[in-house]
Amino acid sequence: MTRHDGRENNDLREITIERGWSKQAEGSALISFGNTKVLCTASFTNGVPRWLKGKGTGWVTAEYSMLPRSTNDRMDRESVKGRIGGRTHEISRLIGRSLRAVVDMKALGENTLVIDCDVLQADGGTRTAAITGAYVAMADALEWGRDKGFIGKNAKPLIDSVAAVSVGIIDGVPMLDLAYVEDVRAETDMNVVVTGRGLFVEVQGTAEGAPFDRNELNALLDLALGGGADLTALQVATLAS
Amino acid sequence: MTRHDGRENNDLREITIERGWSKQAEGSALISFGNTKVLCTASFTNGVPRWLKGKGTGWVTAEYSMLPRSTNDRMDRESVKGRIGGRTHEISRLIGRSLRAVVDMKALGENTLVIDCDVLQADGGTRTAAITGAYVAMADALEWGRDKGFIGKNAKPLIDSVAAVSVGIIDGVPMLDLAYVEDVRAETDMNVVVTGRGLFVEVQGTAEGAPFDRNELNALLDLALGGGADLTALQVATLAS
Amino acid sequence: MTRHDGRENNDLREITIERGWSKQAEGSALISFGNTKVLCTASFTNGVPRWLKGKGTGWVTAEYSMLPRSTNDRMDRESVKGRIGGRTHEISRLIGRSLRAVVDMKALGENTLVIDCDVLQADGGTRTAAITGAYVAMADALEWGRDKGFIGKNAKPLIDSVAAVSVGIIDGVPMLDLAYVEDVRAETDMNVVVTGRGLFVEVQGTAEGAPFDRNELNALLDLALGGGADLTALQVATLAS
Amino acid sequence: MTRHDGRENNDLREITIERGWSKQAEGSALISFGNTKVLCTASFTNGVPRWLKGKGTGWVTAEYSMLPRSTNDRMDRESVKGRIGGRTHEISRLIGRSLRAVVDMKALGENTLVIDCDVLQADGGTRTAAITGAYVAMADALEWGRDKGFIGKNAKPLIDSVAAVSVGIIDGVPMLDLAYVEDVRAETDMNVVVTGRGLFVEVQGTAEGAPFDRNELNALLDLALGGGADLTALQVATLAS
Amino acid sequence: MTRHDGRENNDLREITIERGWSKQAEGSALISFGNTKVLCTASFTNGVPRWLKGKGTGWVTAEYSMLPRSTNDRMDRESVKGRIGGRTHEISRLIGRSLRAVVDMKALGENTLVIDCDVLQADGGTRTAAITGAYVAMADALEWGRDKGFIGKNAKPLIDSVAAVSVGIIDGVPMLDLAYVEDVRAETDMNVVVTGRGLFVEVQGTAEGAPFDRNELNALLDLALGGGADLTALQVATLAS
Amino acid sequence: MTRHDGRENNDLREITIERGWSKQAEGSALISFGNTKVLCTASFTNGVPRWLKGKGTGWVTAEYSMLPRSTNDRMDRESVKGRIGGRTHEISRLIGRSLRAVVDMKALGENTLVIDCDVLQADGGTRTAAITGAYVAMADALEWGRDKGFIGKNAKPLIDSVAAVSVGIIDGVPMLDLAYVEDVRAETDMNVVVTGRGLFVEVQGTAEGAPFDRNELNALLDLALGGGADLTALQVATLAS
Repeated sequence: MTRHDGRENNDLREITIERGWSKQAEGSALISFGNTKVLCTASFTNGVPRWLKGKGTGWVTAEYSMLPRSTNDRMDRESVKGRIGGRTHEISRLIGRSLRAVVDMKALGENTLVIDCDVLQADGGTRTAAITGAYVAMADALEWGRDKGFIGKNAKPLIDSVAAVSVGIIDGVPMLDLAYVEDVRAETDMNVVVTGRGLFVEVQGTAEGAPFDRNELNALLDLALGGGADLTALQVATLAS
Repeated sequence: MTRHDGRENNDLREITIERGWSKQAEGSALISFGNTKVLCTASFTNGVPRWLKGKGTGWVTAEYSMLPRSTNDRMDRESVKGRIGGRTHEISRLIGRSLRAVVDMKALGENTLVIDCDVLQADGGTRTAAITGAYVAMADALEWGRDKGFIGKNAKPLIDSVAAVSVGIIDGVPMLDLAYVEDVRAETDMNVVVTGRGLFVEVQGTAEGAPFDRNELNALLDLALGGGADLTALQVATLAS
Repeated sequence: MTRHDGRENNDLREITIERGWSKQAEGSALISFGNTKVLCTASFTNGVPRWLKGKGTGWVTAEYSMLPRSTNDRMDRESVKGRIGGRTHEISRLIGRSLRAVVDMKALGENTLVIDCDVLQADGGTRTAAITGAYVAMADALEWGRDKGFIGKNAKPLIDSVAAVSVGIIDGVPMLDLAYVEDVRAETDMNVVVTGRGLFVEVQGTAEGAPFDRNELNALLDLALGGGADLTALQVATLAS
Repeated sequence: MTRHDGRENNDLREITIERGWSKQAEGSALISFGNTKVLCTASFTNGVPRWLKGKGTGWVTAEYSMLPRSTNDRMDRESVKGRIGGRTHEISRLIGRSLRAVVDMKALGENTLVIDCDVLQADGGTRTAAITGAYVAMADALEWGRDKGFIGKNAKPLIDSVAAVSVGIIDGVPMLDLAYVEDVRAETDMNVVVTGRGLFVEVQGTAEGAPFDRNELNALLDLALGGGADLTALQVATLAS
Repeated sequence: MTRHDGRENNDLREITIERGWSKQAEGSALISFGNTKVLCTASFTNGVPRWLKGKGTGWVTAEYSMLPRSTNDRMDRESVKGRIGGRTHEISRLIGRSLRAVVDMKALGENTLVIDCDVLQADGGTRTAAITGAYVAMADALEWGRDKGFIGKNAKPLIDSVAAVSVGIIDGVPMLDLAYVEDVRAETDMNVVVTGRGLFVEVQGTAEGAPFDRNELNALLDLALGGGADLTALQVATLAS
Repeated sequence: MTRHDGRENNDLREITIERGWSKQAEGSALISFGNTKVLCTASFTNGVPRWLKGKGTGWVTAEYSMLPRSTNDRMDRESVKGRIGGRTHEISRLIGRSLRAVVDMKALGENTLVIDCDVLQADGGTRTAAITGAYVAMADALEWGRDKGFIGKNAKPLIDSVAAVSVGIIDGVPMLDLAYVEDVRAETDMNVVVTGRGLFVEVQGTAEGAPFDRNELNALLDLALGGGADLTALQVATLAS
């Protein structure tokens, strides 16, 4: 059995990262997971929100959004509706937690990073692409901050790298990096955020169809760790270029 | 090492369920996980939202909220702020998905269940208490619907039961059912939703401090399955009384 | 003629007050007027809003809300609708004014009390139950503030007690403390807030059906003063226990 | 003792009503209570909201608002703030109830009246001026509806007239129709809505300072009934002109 | 060919300005362009918003709104809808820019002017009436500020006057100051804001029907400059009276 | 005198149009005016909003938005603020009017086009780039609709093309297509929307600094017509490719 696009079950889609896409942001990456395209920008500001002032630690937060016609059917804008939906909130919070897991806030010092992940085109896996691209944007913004003298020369604000990938069970078979047509058919859907060292930051598994057992969970985690390692390698290569 | 309240690491707090607390709702339960108290009501309506009409299937949704002084420091009301926060959205969606996982929508027929989970007092684990109590309220509302003739005599809308419990790692030690003082200290925090048959509906693990490895994840899942079984037994006993 | 629940026209429903229901709030009371149940919490904060700073006086405010399934038909949450309705605003303001009428703001000093009245179950008279219970919660919060040293040992922030009761005319007959089934049939509906000394704080009479004359108004006020005295006695007994 | 503007305690301010001020509305009145000026328009629509269709009865509702610089200090617009305040809600509801009290909804038939009361200049008593002027606007809009054939030739949708006036106790003395400088000094403030026949529609008394006793309440009601009769006479004269 | 109201193509409607209409505002004007009536108030505050403090310059801003029944069909209030519409935003911004164009912010000093333009009755040209009336209100408020000593005796905050008028092409013929019945038929609609010296502040032309050519544009600008001069003369006369 | 980027006063920046950038939308274009980049998508839906049903005409509308870090300083998202700002409203309306000016709604039939213009990177002229790119996206979406049979084979919904460009006066010199650094220095700023035949759809000139006279206005219009012709040529070439 092969997948709709010819991949094996443990294959990622084609992943590309255009580092420095934005001329305005301190760090940025336009990342593609197949047809899913997310523009990630990292805005570095010297200083922290009022409630953190004087504590010697920094702050990292993230916002996720989809363009109205990133999807096959046009969605109404959340700005027009006047409120942010639950899914948007949930993913923004997930991205923020994932990034904070690899930042040493003391080493960051009293600086703020706001990461914006805007989905330009959606074909499944937008949140995992967002996290993976956001790490690259954040890494560059941190170096910008170091160049400007806002971060000490020898400070190490990054304690690890972070990437994310989706896995799911379709017709009983565990698969890596689901495209949209796979995602809607999956019985179980899991997003896994892993560090460059192979540790878990987030494991979010949901039975969309039938509940899943321990063996299925284990098979999904195996796939995710493999995919995460590939994404980490690509991040390293991108930042080295 | 014992816990602040004398429990062993694999002990639940004292769990009580007051079934039928509300005189207004078709099903209800006031559930306590220690000092955490959640009022769960299930509102049964014959009929479905417009977008589901004529499809022969039902709908189950949930809303979660905290009273402003359920917590140690008073929180502003979301109605006063004019918007629902990300955490509230996230938990409402989790409760809804968890309940839908054990409902056969065809057997439910064109009926709607709205489950409200209002936290009267909070001491950690409000979302897991909410799911556990919501199942009891929902089960009673379904029987109400059967009595009224909205659900067939032999229809089986419930295909399993569902309960939830939190687990976490504190000072390197996995623990079951965290109270608030434990929750704030946990390096890793996981909410696990399991069915009466011991299958997973949701697994949501987050590294609040350090990322976690595969062994830690396994230990947490073991604890959660044990706690889930105990909660299931209590649900069964409550509904049998 | 007797009422649907066997009461005489000048009888209150069964009134119970569970003082100190909440483990979190500085003062609290779960009050029942028959099947109407309102959880009242009083949050004491040392300090006042910015616009009052340095004036040597305190601040008391209140918020009222109903759980969505406190009523026979489920209501949408105001947090979900994104706006507070006129009725909620009106009642919150009434409770606040009623409580402030018995507080000496100078004696309170620069401290703030926020009273939350959340209706857990509604069967008519929720605003009058809320005021009556809120007074008990507030009295306890003030003693908490005195114990903590935020209020002087000999300061007397409470200059009187306050309670409230509804009265109405049904089929031409004045009645005390209307239950929901009575409330919907009343031609005239009045909420009266009285102090422990028998003075009026608020008199709000509305002709729901036919306008009323001076004699009817007088009969309603007589009933209300009687009911207010009974509620005052219960408040005194509760706070003495 | 005379008042700041030379009035006796039982004198109204100068009251003027410009009937038909608006060229757009079916009925309108620009009413002045001294320096308080309120533009009242009545919009007549054939038909009723969906929830009333087919019941053979009409609907009357009202909205109240203040121009931002109607007051001595400019207020922010509620449209800019994005939410309507409690006071605005409260007064809109009061005006609507007052008008509905004198309309026979069956005789109105399936027609809708929306009354807008916009305060152009405020100097105390804006809600009472609004009710008094709204009645005139409504009466003219009803005649417009009769002329157009939406209301039967012999139908009597108006069963009485309605007017309103404020009363209050200042330095222990009951006074009629308070101007702003009096209103802020009043210990007790009462708004009374009366019909042309001298019956009460609303009695809303509030102890702003000290609670009030039965004698004071009676004195205030006496004053209000007198003022209401004068306003009724002016309404009659205006509609006859 | 004459117009529906007998005017020539280059005639303004009857223009009246009631200077000082409001007893509350520092400057005010009730302006009529035929049946269009706009109440303009100017609120003078000593001081500026925080972001301008210490820069020695002032601030002028404007807000535009329409009463719900200023128009032939009642519109919903923007405060009730909870959001301001695009047209309202657009016109408020236009009025603010127009007024700022004739104010020397240094000469104004650290003072703030808020101009409110509320349309009481609408018959086309509400934004041009608003600008024309707002200038008169602003001029008076500036003199108030000078009298109070907030503006220096010899300071000249007004560097010119400003007025506005609409022009349009109807059936191929350019016309001045369109009434509503003309406005809806116009192929091209232009609002022109001019100073007393005959310079342009804003030129906003829109092809509602067919696009327009250079000759048509020139004819419209000729008409607008003529109308602007007439309005300027009226403003001068009004402020001299 | 040359400009900061070496252009002559009547030079456009480098303009590129990537037609069909989006795999999801029926028509799309990623347009660049120098460093300004706007993603334009056109969503074609068979059918019209309810208020247009049965009239045989179509509907075209547009929404404009900026990504939070499209600009040099990060802006808060309008979805997070819960309201759309005046500038966004104004530009969305301008784009919609400009596109509708070249569409024959009868020939479009009962079909709806929603054009989304999202600014990915901003360097002045975002609204003019948006209009110019939106036309290309719209043209392709119309052909999609013709291919699907929603538009007749011989119907001509496009009656002309449309493009837009900014012009301004800097240090007294009229210039074409302002970049951001020029825009902030301009005394007068004008956006001109022209059709392929050289007619005006919109002329919006604003004196940001000093008011402008008739000669300056003419010089700006000359520049704009020249730039518009160049943009038209590029649109034609893009759609022919």
